Amino acid sequence: MKKIFPFILFSLSALLANAQNYKSDSLNLKLMSNHILTNYQCYKDLHDLCKHIGHRISGSPQAAEAVKWGKEVMEKIGCDRVYLQEVMVPHWVRGEAKASIIPSKGKPISMLISSLGNAIGTGAGGLNASILQINHIDDLKRMNPNDVKGKIVFYNFKFDQTNINTFESYGPCVYYRWGAPSEAAKLGAVGVVIRSVSSAFDDKPHTGSIAYDKKYPSIPAVAISNLDADQLETMLKTDQHISMQMTTTCQMLPDVMSYNVIGEIKGTEHPEEIICFGGHLDSWDIGEGAHDDGAGVVQAMEVLRVFLELGIRPKRTIRAILFMNEENGLRGAKRYAELAEQNSEHHILAIESDAGGSTPFGFSMTMEKEKREKVKRWSNLLLPYGLYSFDREGGGADVGPLNRKFKTPVMELMPDSQRYFDMHHSENDVFENVHRRELSLGAIAMAQMVYLVSMYGL
Amino acid sequence: MKKIFPFILFSLSALLANAQNYKSDSLNLKLMSNHILTNYQCYKDLHDLCKHIGHRISGSPQAAEAVKWGKEVMEKIGCDRVYLQEVMVPHWVRGEAKASIIPSKGKPISMLISSLGNAIGTGAGGLNASILQINHIDDLKRMNPNDVKGKIVFYNFKFDQTNINTFESYGPCVYYRWGAPSEAAKLGAVGVVIRSVSSAFDDKPHTGSIAYDKKYPSIPAVAISNLDADQLETMLKTDQHISMQMTTTCQMLPDVMSYNVIGEIKGTEHPEEIICFGGHLDSWDIGEGAHDDGAGVVQAMEVLRVFLELGIRPKRTIRAILFMNEENGLRGAKRYAELAEQNSEHHILAIESDAGGSTPFGFSMTMEKEKREKVKRWSNLLLPYGLYSFDREGGGADVGPLNRKFKTPVMELMPDSQRYFDMHHSENDVFENVHRRELSLGAIAMAQMVYLVSMYGL
Repeated sequence: MKKIFPFILFSLSALLANAQNYKSDSLNLKLMSNHILTNYQCYKDLHDLCKHIGHRISGSPQAAEAVKWGKEVMEKIGCDRVYLQEVMVPHWVRGEAKASIIPSKGKPISMLISSLGNAIGTGAGGLNASILQINHIDDLKRMNPNDVKGKIVFYNFKFDQTNINTFESYGPCVYYRWGAPSEAAKLGAVGVVIRSVSSAFDDKPHTGSIAYDKKYPSIPAVAISNLDADQLETMLKTDQHISMQMTTTCQMLPDVMSYNVIGEIKGTEHPEEIICFGGHLDSWDIGEGAHDDGAGVVQAMEVLRVFLELGIRPKRTIRAILFMNEENGLRGAKRYAELAEQNSEHHILAIESDAGGSTPFGFSMTMEKEKREKVKRWSNLLLPYGLYSFDREGGGADVGPLNRKFKTPVMELMPDSQRYFDMHHSENDVFENVHRRELSLGAIAMAQMVYLVSMYGL
Repeated sequence: MKKIFPFILFSLSALLANAQNYKSDSLNLKLMSNHILTNYQCYKDLHDLCKHIGHRISGSPQAAEAVKWGKEVMEKIGCDRVYLQEVMVPHWVRGEAKASIIPSKGKPISMLISSLGNAIGTGAGGLNASILQINHIDDLKRMNPNDVKGKIVFYNFKFDQTNINTFESYGPCVYYRWGAPSEAAKLGAVGVVIRSVSSAFDDKPHTGSIAYDKKYPSIPAVAISNLDADQLETMLKTDQHISMQMTTTCQMLPDVMSYNVIGEIKGTEHPEEIICFGGHLDSWDIGEGAHDDGAGVVQAMEVLRVFLELGIRPKRTIRAILFMNEENGLRGAKRYAELAEQNSEHHILAIESDAGGSTPFGFSMTMEKEKREKVKRWSNLLLPYGLYSFDREGGGADVGPLNRKFKTPVMELMPDSQRYFDMHHSENDVFENVHRRELSLGAIAMAQMVYLVSMYGL
């Protein structure tokens, strides 16, 4: 009895303390939500970024403007500290791109193309070669190089519409944009045209990075829209001798100095423990980079804003990072992790928002089991905000270097993915396709997760 | 031991049986999902309904066309039985509507208005009266009738942006459209203008039904957009003598014969047990009734289609109902329940889809606890499709009469609600604002729930 009594007392007081925390945390989470849903400053910020700066590929004047803008917004928010981190970034320029399909009989058909990011161009002289359709990389690998040599390979791999989470369809398609062009070059192909990595049935080509394997020649590579790919596929069924004429003047210029933009609020009790979160400030040079990743950028800044405007002081340091050069180099993220090492910083969590500005349903995570379990114990607090999924594995590209270098626990906000790949890396990715309330819910989810970890650690 | 052994055997076999069911059910649910996501015939049906017929208020020629269309589509699907149920419906026509705001000094400002459904018009002569702004019904109730008499009451009640589920904000606003106009008439008001029941900050007025209390005079009632309501509110802050001139020629014509459209597949083992599901075929006479409720209509038909195209025979009878006249009378739903009684039909479940065509996250339910628990035991099968919420109370308007008459268990599909009230009952509710995959996910959720109940009862 003697032993049990203090234990009961302890348990009771622990229970009461928890109960109180639960109540005040629940209230704080609701206050954050109300504040963001009624002010939705992140939506106004996104408007500003998309409409006054527009797309902002690394090294471009718009990217430089975006750095200035991000710094000013965070200074205006009133962060304890706002600073830039220098980083040299690639400077790829798209130039012109035009193409036509030339059937064995009849007139050429002009087709909208988009050079893949970091690709070399054909030069002003252009490229003309016959088209070889490849539906799956295994089909190419089985071919006699003589049948590939001198041709433009048309990768016709289709976006799988049957996955509920469209990111699961994105992965396999990306290979055809990222790595497969060099497989074609290996067999002597002189160019590549891919079916866009897109869930939309429309006429917009989608860009995105290519990664040349330096063992083989770098060859021009472009994307065509799903509708055009359908048309080309249909034509190739009855005409084996179709060629393509393409002229692309894209090129890689010398690296340019750019910056990660960082804003933070110092923790009151454990300032040395850092929770960072963010998105990438650069975007592709098509559309406005609204979902990808204007959304993540403005959500990260909104997290800082809601803490400051509600007067909530985090116990641990919270830091928003607007990463530079996610799209075609990841230089900003790598630099961030290097500097974290140089400065002996201790990150207890890194959260990324780079999956679009739609209604969120949870967070994917890569961290030790006990940490994940700790997060999942908060799920009752988060469920009223539509957040129910905490079991998926995964972080994001920009928090990857931290995770690889320090085993930093990482998370990524998971928004509904149904519309994302209709817009991603294309002209469709504009402000008008982001919804005020949906974007705000993402900011709320980020703010709530940051709040809980800032109060209770991880 | 003797007693335990058979028990273990029984448990093992039960487990195995369950495991088998779970596996084959899981497979069937996935097949349904794949089929709908790759064919998305419901999306094509919605295009047809919205673009070739358009909006279709009860009693209109378009509503008659929609009946014919719905019957033809279900016949083409190859249902066991397709039939119509006669029902007399109200025939309200909108006519013209124009208005201007007249400040005490300066020029009149013309303002876009939308007559509330079932409202009387001002007639060609119009109505001109000074405006009395009321922010909350309690403020009106406290007023001296002399201060209301002869005025146009401007109900300026705002959509609460802080609810995560926007249906929770819709409810309180609806009162100002539905019941509050008669409260104004009771005190002598001659007209009502309401701030649209809308989450959007745009210039589109949203219509919807009014219900006159017959104890008081019926007075003209119209909606203005949120932006116009903001403007009017601002003007009234500095000018107490603003009047409104409005002319509306809407009127109620004699009732018209119309129809519920029904298609069914007979159950193989318990044909007498009916699972019905549907949406409403009528819409408001603005926009195209795409989310409200073209989505529910095409999803219901898709449920039948996926069973037939995959060759899945339900053990219980499954029935799609395209209800007539949900928007301004609920006559179809009432008629359906009456006929169910006359024909001694036994409905084990009625599911409604009338909350838009966005990504679904669960079903609300009104049923006995044990039945709800039975449904919740299927939640692991449904979670991969993003369906996690089965705890909310609620059915829908069209399944209400069945529930009230027979205590039939009812459910309503719950789609993400962030964008719904931007479009609902306005010009924004068009096909272009419905997404193929999101709509399809709703159809999948409906088909899966119908499948499980058709196999295991409720």
